[in-house]
Amino acid sequence: MAGNSFGKLFTLTTFGESHGPSIGGIIDGCPAGIILEMNAIQAELNRRKPGQSEIVTQRKEPDTVEFLSGIFEGQTTGTPIGFTIKNTNQKSKDYSHIKDVYRPSHADFTYEKKYGVRDYRGGGRSSARETACRVVAGAIAKQLLKNVKIHAFTSSVGDLFLEKPYQELDFTKIESNDVRCPDETIANQMIEKIKAIRKEGDTIGGTVTCVIQNVPVGLGEPVFDKLHAELGKAMLSINAVKGFEYGSGFCGAKMKGSDHNDLFNDDGTTKTNLSGGIQGGISNGMDIYFRVAFKPVATIIQKQNTLDNQGNIVEMQGKGRHDPCVVPRAVPIVEAMAALVLADYLLLRRQESHQ
Amino acid sequence: MAGNSFGKLFTLTTFGESHGPSIGGIIDGCPAGIILEMNAIQAELNRRKPGQSEIVTQRKEPDTVEFLSGIFEGQTTGTPIGFTIKNTNQKSKDYSHIKDVYRPSHADFTYEKKYGVRDYRGGGRSSARETACRVVAGAIAKQLLKNVKIHAFTSSVGDLFLEKPYQELDFTKIESNDVRCPDETIANQMIEKIKAIRKEGDTIGGTVTCVIQNVPVGLGEPVFDKLHAELGKAMLSINAVKGFEYGSGFCGAKMKGSDHNDLFNDDGTTKTNLSGGIQGGISNGMDIYFRVAFKPVATIIQKQNTLDNQGNIVEMQGKGRHDPCVVPRAVPIVEAMAALVLADYLLLRRQESHQ
Amino acid sequence: MAGNSFGKLFTLTTFGESHGPSIGGIIDGCPAGIILEMNAIQAELNRRKPGQSEIVTQRKEPDTVEFLSGIFEGQTTGTPIGFTIKNTNQKSKDYSHIKDVYRPSHADFTYEKKYGVRDYRGGGRSSARETACRVVAGAIAKQLLKNVKIHAFTSSVGDLFLEKPYQELDFTKIESNDVRCPDETIANQMIEKIKAIRKEGDTIGGTVTCVIQNVPVGLGEPVFDKLHAELGKAMLSINAVKGFEYGSGFCGAKMKGSDHNDLFNDDGTTKTNLSGGIQGGISNGMDIYFRVAFKPVATIIQKQNTLDNQGNIVEMQGKGRHDPCVVPRAVPIVEAMAALVLADYLLLRRQESHQ
Amino acid sequence: MAGNSFGKLFTLTTFGESHGPSIGGIIDGCPAGIILEMNAIQAELNRRKPGQSEIVTQRKEPDTVEFLSGIFEGQTTGTPIGFTIKNTNQKSKDYSHIKDVYRPSHADFTYEKKYGVRDYRGGGRSSARETACRVVAGAIAKQLLKNVKIHAFTSSVGDLFLEKPYQELDFTKIESNDVRCPDETIANQMIEKIKAIRKEGDTIGGTVTCVIQNVPVGLGEPVFDKLHAELGKAMLSINAVKGFEYGSGFCGAKMKGSDHNDLFNDDGTTKTNLSGGIQGGISNGMDIYFRVAFKPVATIIQKQNTLDNQGNIVEMQGKGRHDPCVVPRAVPIVEAMAALVLADYLLLRRQESHQ
Repeated sequence: MAGNSFGKLFTLTTFGESHGPSIGGIIDGCPAGIILEMNAIQAELNRRKPGQSEIVTQRKEPDTVEFLSGIFEGQTTGTPIGFTIKNTNQKSKDYSHIKDVYRPSHADFTYEKKYGVRDYRGGGRSSARETACRVVAGAIAKQLLKNVKIHAFTSSVGDLFLEKPYQELDFTKIESNDVRCPDETIANQMIEKIKAIRKEGDTIGGTVTCVIQNVPVGLGEPVFDKLHAELGKAMLSINAVKGFEYGSGFCGAKMKGSDHNDLFNDDGTTKTNLSGGIQGGISNGMDIYFRVAFKPVATIIQKQNTLDNQGNIVEMQGKGRHDPCVVPRAVPIVEAMAALVLADYLLLRRQESHQ
Repeated sequence: MAGNSFGKLFTLTTFGESHGPSIGGIIDGCPAGIILEMNAIQAELNRRKPGQSEIVTQRKEPDTVEFLSGIFEGQTTGTPIGFTIKNTNQKSKDYSHIKDVYRPSHADFTYEKKYGVRDYRGGGRSSARETACRVVAGAIAKQLLKNVKIHAFTSSVGDLFLEKPYQELDFTKIESNDVRCPDETIANQMIEKIKAIRKEGDTIGGTVTCVIQNVPVGLGEPVFDKLHAELGKAMLSINAVKGFEYGSGFCGAKMKGSDHNDLFNDDGTTKTNLSGGIQGGISNGMDIYFRVAFKPVATIIQKQNTLDNQGNIVEMQGKGRHDPCVVPRAVPIVEAMAALVLADYLLLRRQESHQ
Repeated sequence: MAGNSFGKLFTLTTFGESHGPSIGGIIDGCPAGIILEMNAIQAELNRRKPGQSEIVTQRKEPDTVEFLSGIFEGQTTGTPIGFTIKNTNQKSKDYSHIKDVYRPSHADFTYEKKYGVRDYRGGGRSSARETACRVVAGAIAKQLLKNVKIHAFTSSVGDLFLEKPYQELDFTKIESNDVRCPDETIANQMIEKIKAIRKEGDTIGGTVTCVIQNVPVGLGEPVFDKLHAELGKAMLSINAVKGFEYGSGFCGAKMKGSDHNDLFNDDGTTKTNLSGGIQGGISNGMDIYFRVAFKPVATIIQKQNTLDNQGNIVEMQGKGRHDPCVVPRAVPIVEAMAALVLADYLLLRRQESHQ
Repeated sequence: MAGNSFGKLFTLTTFGESHGPSIGGIIDGCPAGIILEMNAIQAELNRRKPGQSEIVTQRKEPDTVEFLSGIFEGQTTGTPIGFTIKNTNQKSKDYSHIKDVYRPSHADFTYEKKYGVRDYRGGGRSSARETACRVVAGAIAKQLLKNVKIHAFTSSVGDLFLEKPYQELDFTKIESNDVRCPDETIANQMIEKIKAIRKEGDTIGGTVTCVIQNVPVGLGEPVFDKLHAELGKAMLSINAVKGFEYGSGFCGAKMKGSDHNDLFNDDGTTKTNLSGGIQGGISNGMDIYFRVAFKPVATIIQKQNTLDNQGNIVEMQGKGRHDPCVVPRAVPIVEAMAALVLADYLLLRRQESHQ
């Protein structure tokens, strides 16, 4: 209830601050008998980890996951999977300059007002470091989902947009460049943009698009727990996210019904897919796709005025090694959260009909 | 778990199909001792009910709520509040034409595939009629919230946009016109647009913007249950919603950090509010505002090809009395869901610090 | 969270005070496609209803259940099943004598201290009338469970005990007498005992034993949600229950391991069943059996001193028509709660292994 | 949902097998600002740990808890508290004799049937080692509860009963002997009994009684989540528990209402307390007391026939270092679970009235 758990049957509960000894989590409800490919889990973590390329933060953390339970002789046992990831790069002294100061557009102020106390070292619990645990759980969820394919990619950086419809993209190219955009030309422009922004000591926002293929028909719980509502919540819970749309999204709000309706083929598929693979909150077997908006990272390497905990306006300047654009590293996080939702709804699906 | 409950401490569970004897719900966790203004509850229902104006469906249903428990001598007792709303306008014969047919972009196909059985009368459980129960619960939540003010309004219909920032709007004008847009000029354009669309037998999408004022600092549970993530889920669970953005939203994804950061005043408020009143998932005391995208209603009074349950493509034409644009009636639903989230998080707030 | 919901996947949420217009509930998560025998549901309610025999309260209430949703053309649709039971016998004037008084060993005092307000009419929410809703839901759960057989019966009234092991009882005799004890001789003694107690204006406690046969192996969630832990909670949540034991129960605490261990047969059954059909919280396929202790009803038709809400000790005398012994009417309630637990765990069982 | 979480607002989720690298858990929802006495936490663990006296298992494990998050500069921060306890005594070779065999009255058979796979080393997840995590969380819950005093003690071993009413006991004596019985004479008899049983290679059951003092009025959620129902579930979830009774318990089922009712004093206390401090599921401010039955440990150092996974009956003999009686080490576990329930219900209490 305090917000550190996700999911109904396939659940993840996480703990950990950016500068404590480690972060970690417990995956509960993972079915028994999944023969886990352990390398695939670490590979997902590596997609998220700092220092992986020129356009992300240059912090170095190995982000090695250690499993403590729930896996025996290579397969899941149905018992909870506990895991930790050590915080190896916790230079707490770096953070003395923010001990008494609330950084603009960070969570320092709200945490302190809510809890009366705050682990001020590097964002503490509000740090995006927490998302590494989501990636671990998502990587296991992906192995449960088997044939369901989840592809996220960078679809915009600032005002540079990948305009092509996703059907024309080659998802195998996503990992071929540092920004994780499957169109090489746009990718290069995005990379240059991010490098320029970094030079200014500034940051920039962007969007991630996610496409999910081979989804079984029937996933989703009507009314409050519609599949897209849970996907939306999952995405909005990622640090820095400001918006979510699926299918026709905000564009759909400009359209007429006669243009927007997806007409059926005789096999139950539809000729168009403005619905985004979901009708009435339930998957219809078509591709699910959605787009997630990320704000620019709040830490900039420029002087800003801000507030200290005595009510004084003081000048501060961001230090340290931060992402100029969060989007490239957010791609695996978006996929992980999508996988968690789908795995959960797949398990929920198993008990809804009588035989 | 089957998706018909919302909330953690202040919870709503609903039941009912559009053409059964009644719909209804149970509100559990409402604190004792609230002296309820019963008229205010019915007034909210009246804002949502069919037949209220020329630009909504002309079905006539009184939508009178009947309370069955949890209220004694005018005040809440802390026990569950059960209520029903009779379905008085259930002409089941109207629906024989869709008994064996899956309407395009409706939930007929997915319900039947998921459950193997479907109450085909008027959408059954997937009908937006269910949202009347949300409005009842939201109206009670509003009375719990007291000083927190929630104002939703129509911000676009098709490509007609209310461009003014919300700070320049007079919220007392929202109810002064049928489309619930607080700018009279735009409102009239929107109304004309909807009337024209109706004449074509077509429908059109739109957006609702919601502004929440006087929010206490500290509402929201970090990590997975961030305040905006729950608001997003709440909105995405409303029928026909395709997108949600808060604060700077999708525009924020185009911005630089140096432009996007909200600098502090010395009283803890911020000079700008691109954050939308939430930092790290926790309210910071500034206005919360967000925008919700609604697709055009799928039922159009035009001939369309569709699929029957034997796998044949057949011609059908929507009948009956449907909304040409869902947005005017969605305004009170958006407010209701916002109220449910805030009431729930207000109760959660009460137990997080030691004294 | 406010305690009016039960279950994880097959859930029941109830509402209603003894003297409001009606009580009722919502069953959510019932799988689609169950062809319901409606008479069987009302028959269970009739086993619980007041006025059914000489040894129970002489109040007359038909307790007719009305279903409002979730059932279409005779079968469940997978959507929530809403239902109400009218309170036809609500003579509120009967209760003026307890308006300002806390009856001994009732919940009047605790409700008023907890909520600051109390519906004083006949116990309000704390009345055992609420259990009628459990019986409705339990009757549906039984139909989901099909071959699993649940038999509860009266195993003691005061110091009159049915000593025979359950294996020697003929469960078809349970309904053959008013006290619901399958041994005719003991049953008659119990009935005489209850009649004598009633004449004194007094009440008496008793126990109910429940035996569940044909339970599939593998129901139960280890660690905190062990099958017997959930059964225990279910039983302890019934009004007037003071204790629960399963298998060897409190007697088992006197035994040695060499006597208590259940040795296996080569088909996986066990030679003895002191375990009560559950090992490590998971059903092993043997009969599950447990015993539930009910205190004597607190309302006696004798003068007692008690406390009023001004802090004065005053004399009061119970009025009205009350049960001299709750146990005969508790039998179907125990079965209903057992059915709810098993139905829920049966659904949970469906998603725990990978294929 | 998979049974490894406990609580609604103050929650514990645990992981870990007896022979993995470590066990551990996450406490979520602990309020911020509690200045933790760390020694008190380890002290509770020491009361539970193996090897502490002559009458418990002679395994040696330090059971040192390591906290990984949620505590900063000595106080709780409101974020999840992650912790681990290393398994230092994992001699896996000890367990080869049970790899293919289901031990009688253990969970080997049911785990394998449920999950299709089993960590056979020392009980795996079904080992009582898991309860160490409960003790850690309970020790923190106790610090939240402050003035609420929880005293558990051994009230019987086999047929040796501590007959005195708890009011005549000196709780400060509980820790003065190895069996944790506050009456020295009975304690010595119990200790001799256990030593004799151990010599036989046998085991014996017993009961633990728990008394909770200074409970605020108003804890407990009516209907399904009554305070005693949750306490019952908490206790029944502890390994080896077969029964739970509170207040008058099973004895109450033999009594008449005129004897059982607790008459009020004019300050709202009651002259007797057969109710056990709870009315209608809500605490009334009187002492809460209950009794928990533990079966004899299933592992005996005697030859027994049992079943292997090929369906053969084979002879086996328990090896290793096991508890001859679980009760002395169960005392702190009972207290921990009681503390978890009370802490949770204390937080739930905070949001039920309007001001």
